[in-house]
Amino acid sequence: MKPIKVAMLGCGTVGTEVARLLTDQADDFAARIGTPVELTGIAVRRPNKHREVPAELLTTDADSLVESDVDVVVEVIGGIEPVRSLLLKALRAGKSVVTANKALLAEHGPELYAAADASGADIYFEAAVAGAIPLLRPLRESLAGDRITRVMGIVNGTTNYILSAMSATGAGYAETLEEASRLGYAEADPTADVDGFDAASKAAILASLAFHTRVTAGDVHREGISAVTSADIAAARALGRTVKLLAICERVTDDEGVESVAARVHPAMIPNSHPLASVGGAFNAVFVEADAAGQLMFYGQGAGGAPTASAVLGDLVAVARNIVAGGRGPRESAYAELPVRPMGQASTRYHISLDVADRPGVLSQVAAVFAEHDVSIAVVRQEGRPVDASLVVVTHAASDAALRGTVDKIAGLPVVREVVSVMRVEGEES
Amino acid sequence: MKPIKVAMLGCGTVGTEVARLLTDQADDFAARIGTPVELTGIAVRRPNKHREVPAELLTTDADSLVESDVDVVVEVIGGIEPVRSLLLKALRAGKSVVTANKALLAEHGPELYAAADASGADIYFEAAVAGAIPLLRPLRESLAGDRITRVMGIVNGTTNYILSAMSATGAGYAETLEEASRLGYAEADPTADVDGFDAASKAAILASLAFHTRVTAGDVHREGISAVTSADIAAARALGRTVKLLAICERVTDDEGVESVAARVHPAMIPNSHPLASVGGAFNAVFVEADAAGQLMFYGQGAGGAPTASAVLGDLVAVARNIVAGGRGPRESAYAELPVRPMGQASTRYHISLDVADRPGVLSQVAAVFAEHDVSIAVVRQEGRPVDASLVVVTHAASDAALRGTVDKIAGLPVVREVVSVMRVEGEES
Repeated sequence: MKPIKVAMLGCGTVGTEVARLLTDQADDFAARIGTPVELTGIAVRRPNKHREVPAELLTTDADSLVESDVDVVVEVIGGIEPVRSLLLKALRAGKSVVTANKALLAEHGPELYAAADASGADIYFEAAVAGAIPLLRPLRESLAGDRITRVMGIVNGTTNYILSAMSATGAGYAETLEEASRLGYAEADPTADVDGFDAASKAAILASLAFHTRVTAGDVHREGISAVTSADIAAARALGRTVKLLAICERVTDDEGVESVAARVHPAMIPNSHPLASVGGAFNAVFVEADAAGQLMFYGQGAGGAPTASAVLGDLVAVARNIVAGGRGPRESAYAELPVRPMGQASTRYHISLDVADRPGVLSQVAAVFAEHDVSIAVVRQEGRPVDASLVVVTHAASDAALRGTVDKIAGLPVVREVVSVMRVEGEES
Repeated sequence: MKPIKVAMLGCGTVGTEVARLLTDQADDFAARIGTPVELTGIAVRRPNKHREVPAELLTTDADSLVESDVDVVVEVIGGIEPVRSLLLKALRAGKSVVTANKALLAEHGPELYAAADASGADIYFEAAVAGAIPLLRPLRESLAGDRITRVMGIVNGTTNYILSAMSATGAGYAETLEEASRLGYAEADPTADVDGFDAASKAAILASLAFHTRVTAGDVHREGISAVTSADIAAARALGRTVKLLAICERVTDDEGVESVAARVHPAMIPNSHPLASVGGAFNAVFVEADAAGQLMFYGQGAGGAPTASAVLGDLVAVARNIVAGGRGPRESAYAELPVRPMGQASTRYHISLDVADRPGVLSQVAAVFAEHDVSIAVVRQEGRPVDASLVVVTHAASDAALRGTVDKIAGLPVVREVVSVMRVEGEES
């Protein structure tokens, strides 16, 4: 059997690990696939910057590498162009693709899947979400006989590190971000992480697979962590809760039995007893709920060179086995075509923390505003202090719109000195 | 495209759910596979006992059903014969098999894999280990590009229920087992669960997949929970630990660089802070450690009709997709052929709890016995009481043989009134 020829696009921390492991464990790969894997070239921008891989593999001409006699293209560059064009070229030529590129898949997935379908090539992308954690294959294969209702998880390590650090030190957001950048936990330009773009891309991919429906990054309601204050963190702690940036994908059935899907990324308070509360630093964890399987959890390292390389190489073995056996991996499955519900219709629980005047009648005034907006109160906690008082309200599930109306009006009440914290609550029964 | 015809062998709680979901979600299955799935027959022993499935599907003639014009055989009977013969017949005829039968796979897996290989049929068995949790597919596909070093988990719900109940009530083993049987959490004959046979079968399957080596149930060192006492549970609690029945599969490299694998099932104390400590009742959870991926955890329902059916149906979709696309699933991978290390050579940490006379020199006498057997002590805790005293020792990693020698000699010391508890310790650094 002739070897499987592989071209790699990019050679950063992930690519370097992929190249190293392909060499170090070449015998294992050959045995597991049934034929050797041969890395024939690596496209990079500056070949002299990559001394850890054999110089003769390096090229600056990605187009020619993709067009060369290779069976599989592994992409670890990231970003939209030129990657999109390169991968479309590969797929159209019947070359299978393994990619870790969440942004590309969340924006242009359907175009890539269609190209793969037309030529019979495979496209695998386990590394695009939650790094080393086997998550996409379980969603699209193991649970293919089940009906997934919800996916909720921590899928961005940088924001998880920042929120964990804010909680540990009591420091504010800006200060903690600066420290994270200094320590290498945040990129020089942290926008993609802290504003939730990265998590939103992952949510789009997860929702698409879970619900057999095309969901793009633009469909995902997105709030980052830059508005999270140390007061939010302190308020959460006072209630036995922790603030996490969550990606949540849900299947919803309305009163008339019409199904839709929704995907959102936002910070939320979860109880300290919830398994996601203790997921620290760069780790990721994702809960999946399905009708027959019930609740499942997947946990592991969400980023980093070696963990991401593990996912890339698992996919590489899969597409190589498919080439050897003459089969194909599962295609895009978007048959359900469920409508995507806008965030205004989403219903979540809220925590609101207020500084109020410490005098009789405050609670009844505040409660009246909630009632007026049809937002039902689940828990109230009031604590008097020498001059003013703290009033904490946790609501039952309410729409975003109703909650915003409530908070706006409460902020204007003369008895309310300050709206200290408003944050969604997840991970407990409503 | 013509429909995929499926025969089912058995129709207990899992089979009933499989039949129901195949009917209720027929449109989803057709869309996900690309062609409808048709359940053409169900082999049972007593057709009049299965009113929840269409009577015209039922037959007592399993052989004829397997020989009929079907593409896939789903097996949910359990046990070795007649299942082994039926599945071999199916595979030899090129019919793909989906099975939940851990005992059969742990004993006769290689024979079944060889039959599948020869005819080009698929054999999938996600439901055989950890019920609904996608675990085998991640091991044999997602991590196929990585080097797995360790798998450790709770894979038997009955024993986990009993140990959790003993811990909650302080009751003894026999009493708790009786209660579990009464409540339906333990079988009328609980031997397979409480003596660790079920977990050992699962450990064999996990070790085989993780290490690309044939490991059978007979290779697995097996200790059940019937010797766990309320004193063990109390001793664990006093140290901030919990007793769990663990299945552990390890890749070991000896001083000369020779690799081997080991698989064992036994009760062990783990710290209350360990994620496995809070896995209660019928839930299963499995840790996987791999060189590149690092530590991963999988959590979910380990048994029950619907969760197991979810795993069976995920496999059914996979083999049906392979039939439609003309490919095959991953074959048995046993190329590594690593030797299986006997338990006598295994090295684990131990907790020993003693009732001793409360007088000077006891500790030095006990410590001398440990030293004599070359067992290094990590932690000692001594507590005086009015008449006697309690002495707790946690060792560094020691061989089973050395530990047994130590305990035997300690039990004979005049200053030792009773060896209260001896139990392995897992889940912390040695």
